[in-house]
Amino acid sequence: MTMQQEFRPPIVLMTDFGLRDPYVGVMKGVIAGISPRTPVIDLTHGISPQNIRQGAFFLETSAPYFPDDAIFVAVVDPGVGTGRRAVALVSERGQVFIAPDNGLLGGILENGGVTACYEITSRERMLAGQSATFHGRDIFSPAAAHLAAGAALESLGGPVAPETCARISRPVNRTSDGGMTWEGEIVYADIYGNLVTSLPGDLVEPDRSACLTTENGHTVPLLRTYGDVGKGEALAYRGSSGFLEIAVRDGNAFRSLGAKECERVTLTNRFGEKRDRREG
Amino acid sequence: MTMQQEFRPPIVLMTDFGLRDPYVGVMKGVIAGISPRTPVIDLTHGISPQNIRQGAFFLETSAPYFPDDAIFVAVVDPGVGTGRRAVALVSERGQVFIAPDNGLLGGILENGGVTACYEITSRERMLAGQSATFHGRDIFSPAAAHLAAGAALESLGGPVAPETCARISRPVNRTSDGGMTWEGEIVYADIYGNLVTSLPGDLVEPDRSACLTTENGHTVPLLRTYGDVGKGEALAYRGSSGFLEIAVRDGNAFRSLGAKECERVTLTNRFGEKRDRREG
Amino acid sequence: MTMQQEFRPPIVLMTDFGLRDPYVGVMKGVIAGISPRTPVIDLTHGISPQNIRQGAFFLETSAPYFPDDAIFVAVVDPGVGTGRRAVALVSERGQVFIAPDNGLLGGILENGGVTACYEITSRERMLAGQSATFHGRDIFSPAAAHLAAGAALESLGGPVAPETCARISRPVNRTSDGGMTWEGEIVYADIYGNLVTSLPGDLVEPDRSACLTTENGHTVPLLRTYGDVGKGEALAYRGSSGFLEIAVRDGNAFRSLGAKECERVTLTNRFGEKRDRREG
Repeated sequence: MTMQQEFRPPIVLMTDFGLRDPYVGVMKGVIAGISPRTPVIDLTHGISPQNIRQGAFFLETSAPYFPDDAIFVAVVDPGVGTGRRAVALVSERGQVFIAPDNGLLGGILENGGVTACYEITSRERMLAGQSATFHGRDIFSPAAAHLAAGAALESLGGPVAPETCARISRPVNRTSDGGMTWEGEIVYADIYGNLVTSLPGDLVEPDRSACLTTENGHTVPLLRTYGDVGKGEALAYRGSSGFLEIAVRDGNAFRSLGAKECERVTLTNRFGEKRDRREG
Repeated sequence: MTMQQEFRPPIVLMTDFGLRDPYVGVMKGVIAGISPRTPVIDLTHGISPQNIRQGAFFLETSAPYFPDDAIFVAVVDPGVGTGRRAVALVSERGQVFIAPDNGLLGGILENGGVTACYEITSRERMLAGQSATFHGRDIFSPAAAHLAAGAALESLGGPVAPETCARISRPVNRTSDGGMTWEGEIVYADIYGNLVTSLPGDLVEPDRSACLTTENGHTVPLLRTYGDVGKGEALAYRGSSGFLEIAVRDGNAFRSLGAKECERVTLTNRFGEKRDRREG
Repeated sequence: MTMQQEFRPPIVLMTDFGLRDPYVGVMKGVIAGISPRTPVIDLTHGISPQNIRQGAFFLETSAPYFPDDAIFVAVVDPGVGTGRRAVALVSERGQVFIAPDNGLLGGILENGGVTACYEITSRERMLAGQSATFHGRDIFSPAAAHLAAGAALESLGGPVAPETCARISRPVNRTSDGGMTWEGEIVYADIYGNLVTSLPGDLVEPDRSACLTTENGHTVPLLRTYGDVGKGEALAYRGSSGFLEIAVRDGNAFRSLGAKECERVTLTNRFGEKRDRREG
């Protein structure tokens, strides 16, 4: 028994499978069969079914909190059984990301620093008798487990250029008269009803001159903390994942504002230009 | 410290407890107290409350994906506190299944290859001060943890004949004029709304001559993949667990067809006899 | 590599974060980064959002089933970002409880036997660049992981008197004409619709002379088991956690009785005084 066997890297799972069905459990069974001592961590299995953009966002914002040797298996895969590739990316930190090449790794790719990418094609790294509909079990989990057990990345398949991997669109930055405007979207409503957006939290300084507007017309000020508004009032702020969120103090923004996942949200910095001049 | 202690077999949990209540967490606490280094894997805790047939199906179809040394603890137990036995089965592969003897192990038993069976009666292998209503915590988890820690199966209680264990009914095969008909049931609707049935996927070859009919009268063709129908159309196909499933391409069969768990489903191979003649 | 490193104590997580959002997964990533070989057990993440009393109850009733070296991280934290303290308690058994000081550890404190308490203030034991809204990730999980990796409790911050920690109210005991009455509350409705109360199960002997009354006026007898009533009838009994529960045999008390979490429930021992006299 070597030290390497002792300290196996963790495999981190993220899917849209939910936890009611046995799909996630079966993936863990497959991993345990290939690499018995590998710890498996659930990032989440609650991605909205087939919502690739949400999955990409969770992966991008969560990966920094995991160790350098983590091997992620991400499965949100509406195109399972079609020609889309299965790939394994390596980041500069050394983290490995295994997923369908459908945009799910788009956030990781946008962050740059991808040092290598492989297409998973080796039958020896897959489960025998694979299905057309459950590559999480038959391809992605076995690939991760073989890596965790010490297999080389090259054994999964041939290298591909990261530039050829599917991307996702990012917030749009538009300049208009006398101010700045960014368009993003609501990525998800969390358990507290907070609306997490795709807009980075550092686009503008929190200030009553900046505000967020939802697709159905609610406009809320961008502030620092809940305490900056009264109970029952809505605000936007930089959330714990570094992106702008909308919340209602002691309330539920999802219910109060009637905003939904994937809806557009607009950040307006009304006096952006003016302030730039003062600062310049 | 011996090697055996190092590589403890995994315990695999399957219950209808859900994950909102602390019941599953407490079972893991009990296991950690008895066998600290045993990895615990959740197969699922989302079995429909007290649905023994669904649990039996999940266990039968999932067990093949777990290692030979896995120790399963399955708890769907409407008869807890009554006279039903607690048993531990051993399969030919060496997997152990610990459960109430109420049909939950019926699928494992039907598959044959059960090499031993014990009734769990030893107080030394149970938690002290057991309750009348939570044998998952007080009897099943401790039994599994003691096995994982090295205890002999015989220490749980005396042997019983596997034939005396409760079974579940299986799909019925009927022959009628000019064709073959099988009756099964809808075991569950998964997160995508796919309807997983109890009908094995290899009863007939996928062919437009075969079809599945739901209790409320929807008839869908048995085909190979989603791509064989247009968007929004329903089909049956061999699912990833080896059983027939009904899906709507890019849709939700559960909602579209109005079919529910436990409803009857009929497979008809309209030209079965004719084909047999050609092949013979 | 020392034996101590080999047998790291488990970290037990309990939150109101749910499992749909990536919050719990990210906490596990942080733990894996600080203390890679620490097993992490989910007690539950299904506490009703911001329901401190429910969390306190689950922690108090579940902790006895975990090993002596368990390190609990409990996060139900409506006051995150305000002045409430972060604390680490040590019980007589040696279990450690890390949580916001808002009453969540109230049940542990009431049980007595708290031998030490520390306020978590050391920046070295926190994640760099902490947020105002996610102390589960930035403060509580890192503190637990550092302890699991061998750090001393004193390294988290200075000692505080356990008496200064926030408590929760407990069932009220009233004596009135000819009997005894206790007032508790419904802590939660479990997956089966059983109503778990805050009333200890040993206040009175099960007996048709004792009964439980809900806030909306349903009165059910206190008995021993489901079998003591007919199908569809309601009863109260000592549940598996040691507290009184209300159930409907082969039914769902939550739906049948229309009772909700946090509602008052009254235990009446109608002939308590009389019986006491007989016994005396």
